[in-house]
Amino acid sequence: MNSKNYVSAHQDQFLSELKDFLRIPSVSTQEKHKDDVLRAAQWLRDRLLDAGVGRAEVLETAGHPVVYAEWMVNEDAPTVLVYGHYDVQPPDPLDEWRTPPFEPTQEGDDLFARGASDDKGQLYAHVKALEAFHETEGAPPVNVKCIFEGEEEMGSPSLEPFIAAHQDLLAADVAVISDTHILGQETPSIVYGLRGLAYVEVTVTGPSGDLHSGHYGGAVHNPINALCAIIADLQDKNGHITIPGFYDDVRELTPEEREELAKVPFDREAWLKEAGVPTDWGEPEYTIVERTSARPTLDVNGIWGGYIEPGAKTVLPSKAHAKISMRLVPDQDPETITELVAEHLKAIAPPTVDLEVESLHGGDGAIVDRESPAMQAAVDAYAATFGREPVFTREGGSIPVVAAFQNYLGLETILIGFGLPDDNLHAPNEKFNISMFYKGIETLIHFYKNL
Amino acid sequence: MNSKNYVSAHQDQFLSELKDFLRIPSVSTQEKHKDDVLRAAQWLRDRLLDAGVGRAEVLETAGHPVVYAEWMVNEDAPTVLVYGHYDVQPPDPLDEWRTPPFEPTQEGDDLFARGASDDKGQLYAHVKALEAFHETEGAPPVNVKCIFEGEEEMGSPSLEPFIAAHQDLLAADVAVISDTHILGQETPSIVYGLRGLAYVEVTVTGPSGDLHSGHYGGAVHNPINALCAIIADLQDKNGHITIPGFYDDVRELTPEEREELAKVPFDREAWLKEAGVPTDWGEPEYTIVERTSARPTLDVNGIWGGYIEPGAKTVLPSKAHAKISMRLVPDQDPETITELVAEHLKAIAPPTVDLEVESLHGGDGAIVDRESPAMQAAVDAYAATFGREPVFTREGGSIPVVAAFQNYLGLETILIGFGLPDDNLHAPNEKFNISMFYKGIETLIHFYKNL
Repeated sequence: MNSKNYVSAHQDQFLSELKDFLRIPSVSTQEKHKDDVLRAAQWLRDRLLDAGVGRAEVLETAGHPVVYAEWMVNEDAPTVLVYGHYDVQPPDPLDEWRTPPFEPTQEGDDLFARGASDDKGQLYAHVKALEAFHETEGAPPVNVKCIFEGEEEMGSPSLEPFIAAHQDLLAADVAVISDTHILGQETPSIVYGLRGLAYVEVTVTGPSGDLHSGHYGGAVHNPINALCAIIADLQDKNGHITIPGFYDDVRELTPEEREELAKVPFDREAWLKEAGVPTDWGEPEYTIVERTSARPTLDVNGIWGGYIEPGAKTVLPSKAHAKISMRLVPDQDPETITELVAEHLKAIAPPTVDLEVESLHGGDGAIVDRESPAMQAAVDAYAATFGREPVFTREGGSIPVVAAFQNYLGLETILIGFGLPDDNLHAPNEKFNISMFYKGIETLIHFYKNL
Repeated sequence: MNSKNYVSAHQDQFLSELKDFLRIPSVSTQEKHKDDVLRAAQWLRDRLLDAGVGRAEVLETAGHPVVYAEWMVNEDAPTVLVYGHYDVQPPDPLDEWRTPPFEPTQEGDDLFARGASDDKGQLYAHVKALEAFHETEGAPPVNVKCIFEGEEEMGSPSLEPFIAAHQDLLAADVAVISDTHILGQETPSIVYGLRGLAYVEVTVTGPSGDLHSGHYGGAVHNPINALCAIIADLQDKNGHITIPGFYDDVRELTPEEREELAKVPFDREAWLKEAGVPTDWGEPEYTIVERTSARPTLDVNGIWGGYIEPGAKTVLPSKAHAKISMRLVPDQDPETITELVAEHLKAIAPPTVDLEVESLHGGDGAIVDRESPAMQAAVDAYAATFGREPVFTREGGSIPVVAAFQNYLGLETILIGFGLPDDNLHAPNEKFNISMFYKGIETLIHFYKNL
């Protein structure tokens, strides 16, 4: 039996194991799920050992642990470092899920669960590719090291220190991550550009305690009104960010890149339907594909203040809060942008309120070389599995570890993703396409062989 | 024993009863407290019967019941209609209370509890004044009717229909309400002007479901950002409302009124400290006293959308919500203003989002004649109890029933309040000053005698 046949013969078992993985609510940002995150790490370590890797352990960090594994087969063969994350986004808002987020539910060719696509399903494809090598050829054709973290959805606070402290352990020739999506089931694609992230929480304080709006309204500045005015002041109506210096370091798209991105198949009507919006929005001088991948953005991810229960309460609240994130492009530095934003927010806050900014997390954007041998191995692997060469794309999300691998380990990272654009990442009803799970395992087997 | 001595001799009993009243969490806007609201009504009816009134009953409405009582003593004597409300504001935010909101706690001369001042303590002063007449003189010097509602904090949806349907039952010569505050313990005052209210809830919908801000940010209009821009657009930086037509019906202060309001003792530093703000805010051409009583305002009372738990979630949410209220002055009509605001909000919403407006409640503002005999009776009652004539003031809050009494019953309403400016109405740590409770009973005894 070859490794491809092994995968075909074990699809049901692989899917059943993935469901077990998805049942563990490893929400890294919520203290109440701390034990679940640890349980997910231990479960993953045990499956790696089951798959035949030589070494797998749960390593402590200042936060949630890292699962490290290695399978050194031949010192002359190249070494690939596989990264993934076993933590998941919070499932909120719960009432918008059609099926329970931590009870994986199969509907047709889709598996619905929080983390199905981001990133448990994609990560687990690597584990099953290794198992296929173990059961058919005894071992993979390359040395493999795995680093699976449990803090990606909280900004990976412990990952960079971990990498910095374990540079020898993690030494490799190339890194690979499956945490992106391809353009469609029939249209494989490789992300070569990623956006970075700066994320801040802003608190505006007006009166020291909640007041009656009838008694004080008109003479006390309402912190919610003040916060709205401050947020409105950060962008023009097309989303162009008005913070001075914000675009200074943006690496503009080259004419060649714009030409290539224009070749990415894009159906505006289908996109509008998928996004569920009446019309698109944003900087008119850029295409939708460019705006969502090669341009920096500013989004309020959450806002709250005052009375938010049913009915009417005429409170003039003490505080108003907003979580604001900026997607960054090469060469914007998250720390610089965070400082710039914090300074600007404080500068435009009126003297009638107090404004505080807390940095929640950040990550660099990245561009991967499209001409390298490892990239060619990925191109050929997709072509072999999908019968079609992949398109090169940029992605709007962030994988901060890509920059850390470059900086600490000198590694180029290949992003071999198997998600689909409608996987509902970070949203209710997240899903992973089951065929993509199996095709992913197959593609990875080709990739490891091509290296 | 005269009625004044009776009050002195029974202070502890009165206070203990008030505490029982305050222990009932009669939060009218919250479905879970529906039974508590009914329980408060029944408790109040029983205390009215204990006080000696001839008739007291709990009358059904479409919502929470009305407690009606009457004590007809002499058909030649005038009849006074006493209004109060036995429901209270929600206690949120609970974690800012120093003592449990429904466990009345005495600290020095203050009694802390939700509803202590607004309006259970003030309402109960009337019940105890009636008891004093019963126990000393056998009966009050005037005919008394009481209408105590349980929906004031939700905008009194059933009160106007109730008044309209019971015009004969409620027929009287003058109405009296104790639901306002005086300027200070040594500075009695009578509110002759009240602001009205229009209250709307706005929902902005962007994408049909939550999206990943990395994948869609930059090309999908974020409903929170859109809502903030819309809210920011409703006012200039000094709080002047920019909705076309908003000020058309505002009855401007006369020079004589401005002169009189300027006489109201006002200590800016003390006011800033009490409000807990670094500086005041608002229309610079009006004084703080004028801005908080004679000018219309716009406050966001609550805002929410997206991810509001600890940590970072990079969601581009589907919806954003805000509760927005406007304090209105004579002769602004709440319905007209609500329509004006709803139309304007829809007009300024960009085509990238959908905006819906729901009207939560409204109430007319009012001005009471300062020259009437009943007003003189109130002035003399304060003077007798406090040793000082009251100042005439306007108040920022709303008592919509004042307009309903005028419209349906042709009654002028006298506002005899005993709250203090720092009673924390609608806010955590609401309190009622215990001396004001006793002085209130005494003042009401004088008032009933003076009529």
